[in-house]
Amino acid sequence: MTEDRYERGWETFRTIDRGVGEQVLKDLEAIAPDMVRQIIEFLYGEVWSRPGLDIKTRTIATVAALTALGNANSQLKYFIHGSLNVGWSREEIIEVIMHMAIYAGFPAALNGMFAAKEVFEARDQNGES
Amino acid sequence: MTEDRYERGWETFRTIDRGVGEQVLKDLEAIAPDMVRQIIEFLYGEVWSRPGLDIKTRTIATVAALTALGNANSQLKYFIHGSLNVGWSREEIIEVIMHMAIYAGFPAALNGMFAAKEVFEARDQNGES
Amino acid sequence: MTEDRYERGWETFRTIDRGVGEQVLKDLEAIAPDMVRQIIEFLYGEVWSRPGLDIKTRTIATVAALTALGNANSQLKYFIHGSLNVGWSREEIIEVIMHMAIYAGFPAALNGMFAAKEVFEARDQNGES
Amino acid sequence: MTEDRYERGWETFRTIDRGVGEQVLKDLEAIAPDMVRQIIEFLYGEVWSRPGLDIKTRTIATVAALTALGNANSQLKYFIHGSLNVGWSREEIIEVIMHMAIYAGFPAALNGMFAAKEVFEARDQNGES
Amino acid sequence: MTEDRYERGWETFRTIDRGVGEQVLKDLEAIAPDMVRQIIEFLYGEVWSRPGLDIKTRTIATVAALTALGNANSQLKYFIHGSLNVGWSREEIIEVIMHMAIYAGFPAALNGMFAAKEVFEARDQNGES
Amino acid sequence: MTEDRYERGWETFRTIDRGVGEQVLKDLEAIAPDMVRQIIEFLYGEVWSRPGLDIKTRTIATVAALTALGNANSQLKYFIHGSLNVGWSREEIIEVIMHMAIYAGFPAALNGMFAAKEVFEARDQNGES
Repeated sequence: MTEDRYERGWETFRTIDRGVGEQVLKDLEAIAPDMVRQIIEFLYGEVWSRPGLDIKTRTIATVAALTALGNANSQLKYFIHGSLNVGWSREEIIEVIMHMAIYAGFPAALNGMFAAKEVFEARDQNGES
Repeated sequence: MTEDRYERGWETFRTIDRGVGEQVLKDLEAIAPDMVRQIIEFLYGEVWSRPGLDIKTRTIATVAALTALGNANSQLKYFIHGSLNVGWSREEIIEVIMHMAIYAGFPAALNGMFAAKEVFEARDQNGES
Repeated sequence: MTEDRYERGWETFRTIDRGVGEQVLKDLEAIAPDMVRQIIEFLYGEVWSRPGLDIKTRTIATVAALTALGNANSQLKYFIHGSLNVGWSREEIIEVIMHMAIYAGFPAALNGMFAAKEVFEARDQNGES
Repeated sequence: MTEDRYERGWETFRTIDRGVGEQVLKDLEAIAPDMVRQIIEFLYGEVWSRPGLDIKTRTIATVAALTALGNANSQLKYFIHGSLNVGWSREEIIEVIMHMAIYAGFPAALNGMFAAKEVFEARDQNGES
Repeated sequence: MTEDRYERGWETFRTIDRGVGEQVLKDLEAIAPDMVRQIIEFLYGEVWSRPGLDIKTRTIATVAALTALGNANSQLKYFIHGSLNVGWSREEIIEVIMHMAIYAGFPAALNGMFAAKEVFEARDQNGES
Repeated sequence: MTEDRYERGWETFRTIDRGVGEQVLKDLEAIAPDMVRQIIEFLYGEVWSRPGLDIKTRTIATVAALTALGNANSQLKYFIHGSLNVGWSREEIIEVIMHMAIYAGFPAALNGMFAAKEVFEARDQNGES
């Protein structure tokens, strides 16, 4: 059963990720291997994999929350990548970040916008949508 | 043109709201009438009405962000109402709040959950879905 | 010298306060008397009493920050009282709270506005400006 | 194995809790039963039960963090109870909350202090230390 | 009327800014041109331009709030520049940032102080007060 | 008496610090010398030196809080150094940071973990435990 969570976790993780996050997990492995396991088993295997809400909605909700919280620039960039990977358009991501200005203030939204800019430029260089 | 924003703002506001928010605006009117105007014209007339992202996605992103921020219990309840009003199911709202536990911590998600519980009970009493 | 800080602290405290805060300090005395001393000696005797910035500016900056932080409703009300006590008008306080909507989001500003409403109503009942 | 986590989770939960939290879980059960399971299995069964740091240190670190975050008054009270249940003294809890004033501001510490006051009074009435 | 807001917005913006912010708006233009318009029309044309509170008070309140929030280092530096541009002294800015230590904690104030240090050094190099 | 606080403050400061923080205080001295004095006299001389809670517990509580707040990366690294200096093991620090994931979210804990990684690597290079 734990084995299942672990397998399902990696599967969900790879639906969102295309290489960016895997390096972070490797860096984390060196210092806190059990946290890597928690991230795969619990975050991706238990929470992200729940059937009651599709992954596309989960990614945009995550982008919204991380923009609003404003304490996690690299994770925000990771989920902007992820949102594009699961089918959101750049325009929709721009919109959700602009939307956050009214709930978390313009500075939080501006920081989110420049995170998006970095992600879009990186993808342009790799020829990704 | 300002007139347009104002009309469009009320229209968007009423798509989400069914009476709960209107009372808050009336209370606010007594102390800060220009803030009521900003909320209708700018928040609803300019941001929420933008065509690049549908209102359904905006409501769930707002519920996610307000749960994560944890500083706005009454606004969160308002947008849980709003999410149900524009077509999200109770199960989906529960899911997005649970999802927030991993990005903003379990206390924030628990507070969000009890906000949802209050909203669902109020709607049960009014025979609303 | 410590004696000085303590005296100066109470003096500064009483410039801002008109009874509301004194009760809070008495309640706190019962559980953490040294924290009361820190508040009088350090907060009011050392920080608020510094000559480089006048008390009027310090009160409005404090109202701005507490509105933005959104985690201290009773302290915010206390400093709305304090701002009125040292010479700001109700209109100016409304303005600084509205101003916060763009830096900390509309929910934080709305909560600040309803805190101001409570304070103004309490003062109306006491015949205070 | 999942069974183990669940059992271990309840055991750890009951080391900290003496009835207060169990009612919260029952209320949560009605709306989000899977979140109750996550709390028992993951929070208490996987995180709190880890051998690398004793439960006593985990409770004081949790009180510190919840005081600093300031967004979870009822959970803070719960872990003040929990800290007393696992062997911290009232004086030590007062100290850690006072300590937070310098890292999260005096309003956050004051709110923490009044949460402690409520908990101590409730325990006095129940004849608990 | 919208035209008015736009003109008034730029005028207010230029009272505060001396070139630093204009480059940020140009960078933002490339990814979210409508957000640039919102910033000029709504932030500067509607909020900052309101007559009920002078621009000098608005800048110091903004520096206070951004120091306290701690999630917007580049915007904070921008408004430290702005505060100096509209007539605050360096000493007064140092004071308001120190003041924030007691409401948002010493780390937030320290980060604000090092932001001020960077701004002062940049201005020294440009021969600005 | 003030002299006492100042002496005691430096003594407590040096129990935690081994050079890292002293440079920060020197940088701060150039812009806000009175804040340096506050940090030594009040933070270290009055709060950290209080007898009701030992320094070892104060450091781990501080690491917990700064990880959770997520707005003070350099201060967090400073207190990870400090925690190791007063006797906590690397494993225990890893544990308290992992523990924060459930109260402040995984992004906050991840950022804390990478702060710890930097500190551990710096100490490896200096041959420190």
